[in-house]
Amino acid sequence: MTISRFSPAKAARWALPAALACAFLALPDPAHAEDGIEFLTQANANILWTLVAALLVFFMQAGFACVEAGFTRAKSAGNIIMKNFLDFGAGQVTFLFLGFALMFGTDAFGLFGTSGFGLSGLTLDYGNFDDSSWNITFWLFQSVFAATAATIVSGGMAERTKFSSYIIISVLVTGLIYPISGHWAWGGLNGDASAGWLENLGFMDFAGSSVVHSVGGWVALAGALVLGPRMGKYGPDGKPRAIPGHNIPLGALGVFILWFGWFGFNAGSTTTADNTIGLIAANTSLAAAAGVLGAMATSWVRFGKPDMSMTMNGALAGLVGITAPCFTVSPMGSLAIGLVAGVLVVLSIEFIDKVLRVDDPVGAVSVHGVCGVWGTLACGLFTVPGLNDGAGGLFYGGGFDILGVQALGAAAYFVWAFGMGLVVMLLVKALFGLRVSEEEEIKGLDITEHGSEAYSGFQIFRTE
Amino acid sequence: MTISRFSPAKAARWALPAALACAFLALPDPAHAEDGIEFLTQANANILWTLVAALLVFFMQAGFACVEAGFTRAKSAGNIIMKNFLDFGAGQVTFLFLGFALMFGTDAFGLFGTSGFGLSGLTLDYGNFDDSSWNITFWLFQSVFAATAATIVSGGMAERTKFSSYIIISVLVTGLIYPISGHWAWGGLNGDASAGWLENLGFMDFAGSSVVHSVGGWVALAGALVLGPRMGKYGPDGKPRAIPGHNIPLGALGVFILWFGWFGFNAGSTTTADNTIGLIAANTSLAAAAGVLGAMATSWVRFGKPDMSMTMNGALAGLVGITAPCFTVSPMGSLAIGLVAGVLVVLSIEFIDKVLRVDDPVGAVSVHGVCGVWGTLACGLFTVPGLNDGAGGLFYGGGFDILGVQALGAAAYFVWAFGMGLVVMLLVKALFGLRVSEEEEIKGLDITEHGSEAYSGFQIFRTE
Amino acid sequence: MTISRFSPAKAARWALPAALACAFLALPDPAHAEDGIEFLTQANANILWTLVAALLVFFMQAGFACVEAGFTRAKSAGNIIMKNFLDFGAGQVTFLFLGFALMFGTDAFGLFGTSGFGLSGLTLDYGNFDDSSWNITFWLFQSVFAATAATIVSGGMAERTKFSSYIIISVLVTGLIYPISGHWAWGGLNGDASAGWLENLGFMDFAGSSVVHSVGGWVALAGALVLGPRMGKYGPDGKPRAIPGHNIPLGALGVFILWFGWFGFNAGSTTTADNTIGLIAANTSLAAAAGVLGAMATSWVRFGKPDMSMTMNGALAGLVGITAPCFTVSPMGSLAIGLVAGVLVVLSIEFIDKVLRVDDPVGAVSVHGVCGVWGTLACGLFTVPGLNDGAGGLFYGGGFDILGVQALGAAAYFVWAFGMGLVVMLLVKALFGLRVSEEEEIKGLDITEHGSEAYSGFQIFRTE
Repeated sequence: MTISRFSPAKAARWALPAALACAFLALPDPAHAEDGIEFLTQANANILWTLVAALLVFFMQAGFACVEAGFTRAKSAGNIIMKNFLDFGAGQVTFLFLGFALMFGTDAFGLFGTSGFGLSGLTLDYGNFDDSSWNITFWLFQSVFAATAATIVSGGMAERTKFSSYIIISVLVTGLIYPISGHWAWGGLNGDASAGWLENLGFMDFAGSSVVHSVGGWVALAGALVLGPRMGKYGPDGKPRAIPGHNIPLGALGVFILWFGWFGFNAGSTTTADNTIGLIAANTSLAAAAGVLGAMATSWVRFGKPDMSMTMNGALAGLVGITAPCFTVSPMGSLAIGLVAGVLVVLSIEFIDKVLRVDDPVGAVSVHGVCGVWGTLACGLFTVPGLNDGAGGLFYGGGFDILGVQALGAAAYFVWAFGMGLVVMLLVKALFGLRVSEEEEIKGLDITEHGSEAYSGFQIFRTE
Repeated sequence: MTISRFSPAKAARWALPAALACAFLALPDPAHAEDGIEFLTQANANILWTLVAALLVFFMQAGFACVEAGFTRAKSAGNIIMKNFLDFGAGQVTFLFLGFALMFGTDAFGLFGTSGFGLSGLTLDYGNFDDSSWNITFWLFQSVFAATAATIVSGGMAERTKFSSYIIISVLVTGLIYPISGHWAWGGLNGDASAGWLENLGFMDFAGSSVVHSVGGWVALAGALVLGPRMGKYGPDGKPRAIPGHNIPLGALGVFILWFGWFGFNAGSTTTADNTIGLIAANTSLAAAAGVLGAMATSWVRFGKPDMSMTMNGALAGLVGITAPCFTVSPMGSLAIGLVAGVLVVLSIEFIDKVLRVDDPVGAVSVHGVCGVWGTLACGLFTVPGLNDGAGGLFYGGGFDILGVQALGAAAYFVWAFGMGLVVMLLVKALFGLRVSEEEEIKGLDITEHGSEAYSGFQIFRTE
Repeated sequence: MTISRFSPAKAARWALPAALACAFLALPDPAHAEDGIEFLTQANANILWTLVAALLVFFMQAGFACVEAGFTRAKSAGNIIMKNFLDFGAGQVTFLFLGFALMFGTDAFGLFGTSGFGLSGLTLDYGNFDDSSWNITFWLFQSVFAATAATIVSGGMAERTKFSSYIIISVLVTGLIYPISGHWAWGGLNGDASAGWLENLGFMDFAGSSVVHSVGGWVALAGALVLGPRMGKYGPDGKPRAIPGHNIPLGALGVFILWFGWFGFNAGSTTTADNTIGLIAANTSLAAAAGVLGAMATSWVRFGKPDMSMTMNGALAGLVGITAPCFTVSPMGSLAIGLVAGVLVVLSIEFIDKVLRVDDPVGAVSVHGVCGVWGTLACGLFTVPGLNDGAGGLFYGGGFDILGVQALGAAAYFVWAFGMGLVVMLLVKALFGLRVSEEEEIKGLDITEHGSEAYSGFQIFRTE
């Protein structure tokens, strides 16, 4: 039996575009019909790798769902997962109609894009599919990034937010707050000479420590502040009480899934199947590994035991920290960045919990906001000259040039995301209400907001 | 330290086939030993992409296991997972000896294949590995599809089927019912001029809305009908009682895994690493996103709250719906297809539960059967001319031509799969019995069929 | 709107290395700047595939975490997952500084490597990135293998090992025991003429049945022996008592994740995107499928019911068994290898439990140690001549030549890994203590070692 590679119908579909592409490029037909061999072109390889990376980033939604559900209480576990489905469902659709254009459209004032709403201008015809085949792949990759930013917010607002109000917030994050953030640093990826203002200053954020993670973290901070803490989180004396997650194995699986997906997040941000992706992936993993060690050690010193959720957050902290510098630092630099992130996340979670008294149930502000800033600044410290068009970071003799721009960018993202976050939260609170009633919060959001429980048949104790 | 790419032993293995392949193709040796560079050929790239896609489709087994276990009761959660292992274990072996040949062997009457049993004709020799290297990859990709069809059936028959009897059913699905379905629409992928009868009529089912999903759904319907409802599912008044799933986070994780794997299912069905895979993947994700929104909104309207399991089924409904048309529709068409699927799945689940009074514990018939038909018909509505050799669907001015063939195909698959499903179920029931005893059903299938519990140490309440 | 593939800044980064690479290779510039097309070179494709495979192997950590936690008790589920994070975190860092050099550095006496500590010699400069881009990718792939070996050990030592002591053991496995094992069979992958002693004898272990799995299994055996059984595991009459796993669905998900990741483990061990990866993947899956059937049937015969954890271990047994021979056997051979592994694992688990009276909570010794030996020997039985530079196994008329070397290698790995395992365990026991107190064991390691529970809010019963 011989199984050929293509059905005749399929072959007909591909012969034409291949021939046209070659004619367009003034090249001999790569299909070489007469000798039956063709080479994979770099353009197709880029689509392949960018697609695989997009799938990995999509899968991070599963990781976020597991982490956020596992690290909160059983009575609202279904609700937070519903928010993940909403974040992706509404987010991807919003990004199609609105966000992508604001992020990558023709630049206005370095602040936002103005064209390409609803993928207008995308021509679909396999007879002439060359540009659009890349564009739709690039759109897919960017859309899964947008959904990530939204998901970060739900963690900080867990267990007390009205589902209907959350929908509005989620749509505004993926449709407005995130894409404009993105335009500032990445708008020029569309080939437009006048790109985002931060990009024009030389701001470095390869895969989004600031653009994606800090932005998500600062909106989460705004949400947690406006909502106030969960009932019983702070005693009458103002001291915080631990509200342990209900399913640590689920949360741990989520952390592993995120780590796995993050390889696509970082190494896929090349959007090119070239020889740099190995270093990026190695840097990514080493930072996460060092984050585990840093957070485990720090929690051991501070609490007397290696804490489970802190250690797992350490992995995420390392990953957030390496997201901006992964393309331009060495493996040793990555270890240092991850180690610092792991220490930082433990201290930050304590600080926010005990000093600021903001109730951030899964540590989203510390992991994504604080460590996102750290990763952004780390570019200014650890950048290796040969990996960055010549200029190096402070620790490589490059002085404060990069560091200054990075600090400016990090500050700008804080102002924009936290400011817009506050505006959005206060507006939604005023118009529709942001928080469920006390009775609903005690019963849990699963039964009150969705009419069923996450765990049926198990004996579960409700705490406040 | 220098790490070279190949050990000498390995290099020797590859040099020969490469040289032979080139000699065969009358090409200069692509390895260009004298200058040390070689290009990746399209043939190798196709193997790479088809393999990656096969892995993703394999991983859908994990998704099905989580969904089916999570959406049913704790006392039989282990049993349904055992069926998943069996579906894949027995299914892949059966597909090796029997199914693949019936599906892709030399055609007989447009109805089934007749050659290639047990991969006969596959010559394994790395010295001359060119054809067989593709064939075994293609076999792997098709075998994971076959196992998917079987797994759908177990969902509709959950919590009351004898394990030993289920083995026979699973083997018959992957060895007989599915491969013959497959031959009708895809048999010609083997390059045989006289392919399946539906294929010859121009029937479109790119990745299997009908071939895989409807077929699985209709066999599940036959199984649920012959089995009858679970004890206590319908009250003395005939009104259905909700039997909630025991672990929604597990089910949700399963839905995300399925969504992730579906990128391989759909975009991998090109079996070619070309520039079309980005559009297919984007269409796939948008339909799932719209399915989430459609089902969430519909359940909100009908039940007063956004329902958790309905919303998650909405994602799956969108994915099943886009499976046939993903290659030939636009992103906007995909949104419409997914949205309709999301609405449809909620209405269908209610209809089957309340009007037909068939107990389908996880909604397999609605998700895979009904939305599979919808996806098949949607090709006749949304096909874009430039993506389909010229002919467009009804909404693109192409008239009823495609739609008619699609309706015929959908009907044929219903008759075949539901009919054969009934025959198989009734036969197995008569010969071996299909259903466990009442006592076993009350105790749960985990302890009675497998001798242990899914959750040990947890307080769990048994409901009927 | 036009989205171009590269930002100008990015393009600048790639133009130089591409041009340099071509100059170096005395080839025309593949970028063909004048006509805008370039081909993906095999070198880049190898990086792409090796990276994707490394991600899949990384993801196996999630699988191990789920399996080990799911198949043990709830009260120590968080602890075992913490060990997984530690295994990877500390393991990857240790492998960076120490393990990689011992495994792939310049050979000394065929026993260990002596150069490349801390990746010394790796020059990072995108202007001249060719060699180092491969080397860092290869390092990443090897580092995830090392972490796998360590993780196997934690399963056999579950529920009674001091966390602080385990850290030392984990570091010694990834930094010393595993890399030296690896050098013996794979050291020559670095192109050094004088490679490991087993390699020089023609020992075959394509992806590590011995190097990774047996080694992990034998260290686990040493650990389980030195620790002694969990409290209550053996009654006063010496008869073993079953201590069922607390979350079979979690364990099952872990098995599916491992199976998924194993495609990267085996097919990725080509470290080459060539046309052999399809056969390797098909062989891998068929062995796992046959392992499921073999273990299910064996448990059915011996215990009267198809056992859940045995069946799942059967999949893993098949995967371990095919890991060495996957590159050089046929699909039918793979079925046989997997089937035998499935039978073997059930018998071995019983033997170790009842006869040897060693308490191996998740069957790590049987799955990885025993089936690793079986896979190693299977190369000597099932090797197909055309897939192995001419020489075939015993069943293919090749006589006992291969089998003899395989048996020698398997014995050598037992002596090394079990011996070193005993030394390490006894040393750690003497210096720091290896086992927690009885009180801690009764309470569970989650609360006593980490200060919190894996499942908060659930009613959970403690058994001993």
